Amino acid sequence: MKVVCIGSGNVATHFSQALNASGHSIVQIWSKGLENAEVLGNSLQAPAINDLKQLDQNADLYLIAVRDDAIASVAEHLKDVHGLVLHTSGATELTVLSTLKRSGVLYPLQTFSKTKALDFNLVPLCIEASTPADLSIVRDLATQLSSKVYEVDSKQRKILHLAAVFACNFTNHLYHISSSILEENQLDFAMLQPLIQETMEKIHTETPFNAQTGPAVRNDQATLDAHINLLKSSPEFKEIYINLSDSIKKTHK
Amino acid sequence: MKVVCIGSGNVATHFSQALNASGHSIVQIWSKGLENAEVLGNSLQAPAINDLKQLDQNADLYLIAVRDDAIASVAEHLKDVHGLVLHTSGATELTVLSTLKRSGVLYPLQTFSKTKALDFNLVPLCIEASTPADLSIVRDLATQLSSKVYEVDSKQRKILHLAAVFACNFTNHLYHISSSILEENQLDFAMLQPLIQETMEKIHTETPFNAQTGPAVRNDQATLDAHINLLKSSPEFKEIYINLSDSIKKTHK
Repeated sequence: MKVVCIGSGNVATHFSQALNASGHSIVQIWSKGLENAEVLGNSLQAPAINDLKQLDQNADLYLIAVRDDAIASVAEHLKDVHGLVLHTSGATELTVLSTLKRSGVLYPLQTFSKTKALDFNLVPLCIEASTPADLSIVRDLATQLSSKVYEVDSKQRKILHLAAVFACNFTNHLYHISSSILEENQLDFAMLQPLIQETMEKIHTETPFNAQTGPAVRNDQATLDAHINLLKSSPEFKEIYINLSDSIKKTHK
Repeated sequence: MKVVCIGSGNVATHFSQALNASGHSIVQIWSKGLENAEVLGNSLQAPAINDLKQLDQNADLYLIAVRDDAIASVAEHLKDVHGLVLHTSGATELTVLSTLKRSGVLYPLQTFSKTKALDFNLVPLCIEASTPADLSIVRDLATQLSSKVYEVDSKQRKILHLAAVFACNFTNHLYHISSSILEENQLDFAMLQPLIQETMEKIHTETPFNAQTGPAVRNDQATLDAHINLLKSSPEFKEIYINLSDSIKKTHK
């Protein structure tokens, strides 16, 4: 398929590379900043543009990988195309593309960094389309890119996205807090790597409920109080500590 | 060495198995509940007791792996022993054992479950002792059990324990929240496994600060509001969502 990639961020980069590796041609990359479009375009030998009016109107597939609040305005420029237009957002309904002839969703349930390679074949892809015929096309495409393809409607996709924020974005922020606390005390965050690894591995064989350990689930108030005292100079981290400990206690009471 | 293991929980179980595998003899297991002591004792061919007055007074090593608030009362029964007494607590100072002839700490910076095996050689062991001679003995012992041995004083150990609560206990609770949200909507938590795995792997090559993704760091208020709305029936999860999102925004502002 001839593919126009709209966006040049983390999601656009990984998708366009995976599409290219699967034998599809990236025929155009759009980005608000021409330089970003060119960096990605050069690596894929695709022309870069920064004007939506210049979008190739004859591609087979348009992949929209821009900020959620910019999807609707991008769609404005695709009203006349006969190709299939897919957005890649977890939080956005398929209906944002309802003015288009053909539309669908290809949502990757994964966290991407431009600088870190990952095996796209293991990225869960959540698919949806406005007609059964286009769903079948999206399914075929998704199956070429990944071994984990799920049909998910807009409501379920929003729930998955919310759950992903807890399991990924918030978890990463806790890693940040943890590393800040250690750094402030001249201790190396690398010491925690085996613990972080094991915490993640445990939930392959146990539910997170059963895997819970630590002072809150043991109701060890002396340790909780000592920790809260250690955090007295960081009111923000202290509030998160109290909040999460209370939630663990409630969950396991 | 002849070792008395005081405790029969997760830490006691993994330590006594690792000591046994390294050629030391577990000569006695104490637990408040005789049945728990017997389960562990039988697997190591060690006599089980539930009365601290019956503690063997002639062992080389006493490993205390009980609740933090019970360490002092266990120590009361070890005042006359010539063997080395070690506690295994992250949150407890070495001085809790200061009335004993010889004392030290062997703190495993890891989360243990009785039912899940793990490679003890990769468990970071934080060591401390009241004399250089005993520190040397603890170092030799720790090095037999694990390739990751750190000399850490009581103050640093408390900081490590606090950081571990954020990186492990709280992270696991976020997995629980995530799985609850999915379960309530008939979605499978296994769909998030690749994302959870990648979130953890990213911080091998990037700082958690640089690895942060999601609506809060993008300042995507529409998505944040939509998520908060989805959580309206769970005030507790909603509060955690707002709290952590605000903290991510502040960290990256």
